[in-house]
Amino acid sequence: RGIRVGYTPDVLTDATAELTVGLLLATCRRLLEAAAEVKTGGWTTWKPLWMCGYGLSGSTVGIIGLGRIGQAVARRLKPFGVKNFLYTGSHPKPENAAEFQAEFVPLTKLAQESDFIVVTCALTPDTQGMCNKNFFSRMKKTSVFINTSRGTVVNQEDLYDALVNGQIAAAGLDVTTPEPLPTDHPLLKLRNCVILPHIGSATYATRSTMAVLAADNLLAGLQGERMPHELLL
Amino acid sequence: RGIRVGYTPDVLTDATAELTVGLLLATCRRLLEAAAEVKTGGWTTWKPLWMCGYGLSGSTVGIIGLGRIGQAVARRLKPFGVKNFLYTGSHPKPENAAEFQAEFVPLTKLAQESDFIVVTCALTPDTQGMCNKNFFSRMKKTSVFINTSRGTVVNQEDLYDALVNGQIAAAGLDVTTPEPLPTDHPLLKLRNCVILPHIGSATYATRSTMAVLAADNLLAGLQGERMPHELLL
Repeated sequence: RGIRVGYTPDVLTDATAELTVGLLLATCRRLLEAAAEVKTGGWTTWKPLWMCGYGLSGSTVGIIGLGRIGQAVARRLKPFGVKNFLYTGSHPKPENAAEFQAEFVPLTKLAQESDFIVVTCALTPDTQGMCNKNFFSRMKKTSVFINTSRGTVVNQEDLYDALVNGQIAAAGLDVTTPEPLPTDHPLLKLRNCVILPHIGSATYATRSTMAVLAADNLLAGLQGERMPHELLL
Repeated sequence: RGIRVGYTPDVLTDATAELTVGLLLATCRRLLEAAAEVKTGGWTTWKPLWMCGYGLSGSTVGIIGLGRIGQAVARRLKPFGVKNFLYTGSHPKPENAAEFQAEFVPLTKLAQESDFIVVTCALTPDTQGMCNKNFFSRMKKTSVFINTSRGTVVNQEDLYDALVNGQIAAAGLDVTTPEPLPTDHPLLKLRNCVILPHIGSATYATRSTMAVLAADNLLAGLQGERMPHELLL
């Protein structure tokens, strides 16, 4: 009370959605494994199924949290030939779903039917630990899991087991528990897990816009004026 | 003469365009560098410009060769907020360009004005060595170069110089000269160069379709019948 807090909403939607799609493609098309093979001499003659991955053409994409970033992700994935969009959350958002003809489904059905699952929800008591053993056990063995929301939405021990046991095909995480993730964490040993250091908003343009907005908030706050974006609790 | 040759056209357009976009995002958003920092302990506290890259929002994308794959790439990049599409080739293709309101320009202008350059042309005497010292010297220092066509379209020594001297920001290559690239090649030492082992068509679905089509060509050829797809020279 008495301490005013400014924040920088909206300005990172595009950069984060872009990073989410990049992470999804890097994970499903195995870009990091493939680049490593070039360096270590694993690239030899052509082999029919070497370094094959799962593509988006004809796929079902499930989005957990169809807010601003979730919609921006769906908009970018659509022209890759995605066949169906599913989404889940605390309640249906028909106005957000219309553009993608996305179907609102329970979390269980989303896990069972999606070829790609993208988590872009807010962290709340309801979503904390939501992606757990029960969730991963319902996914297809060929499905890919992507989280760019907050690390604690995922139970990392359960994700590790699902990846090691081949219960799911691969995972891409831009967020972890804790951050930074210790360099000896078991997830970092897995070929089918791509982990990024929370770079969702890391473009020069976005960080510059965030900096200007933060400065404008600060100046307004110091002068006792209305902040451009003030967090009201 | 007398030897009939079957091939598998079209079926790899989607997979290759998808890989091209994945490689572009991995390169401009520095995914491989960032993932390496997680493993080596470079991920520490938040820093404003750490691991920042260049995003597609508001950018100009130049496509060299607006054929089937070039169009499929443009279609996927459009919802990322690309502002202008430029393209070049042996002649204008207004019917291919209309969907993206892409402007036909000389190679030099494309090099000068594009924030992202994507090479998806065929290898011909005209395109061999086309991306050379003169070409790279006209690009912006903040621009990203992507090649998923054929390795010899690029003069690799000139590309190496452009990357080392900061003449361009980064490059992503799915094709090289030779293939496989020797593991001691200088390009493999650069942080701002992502090299993949020619995995454009490497999805399970695409390789399966290619195999069936190749078998159908072969069976028709052995029986003296019309092949589904025969290369006529």
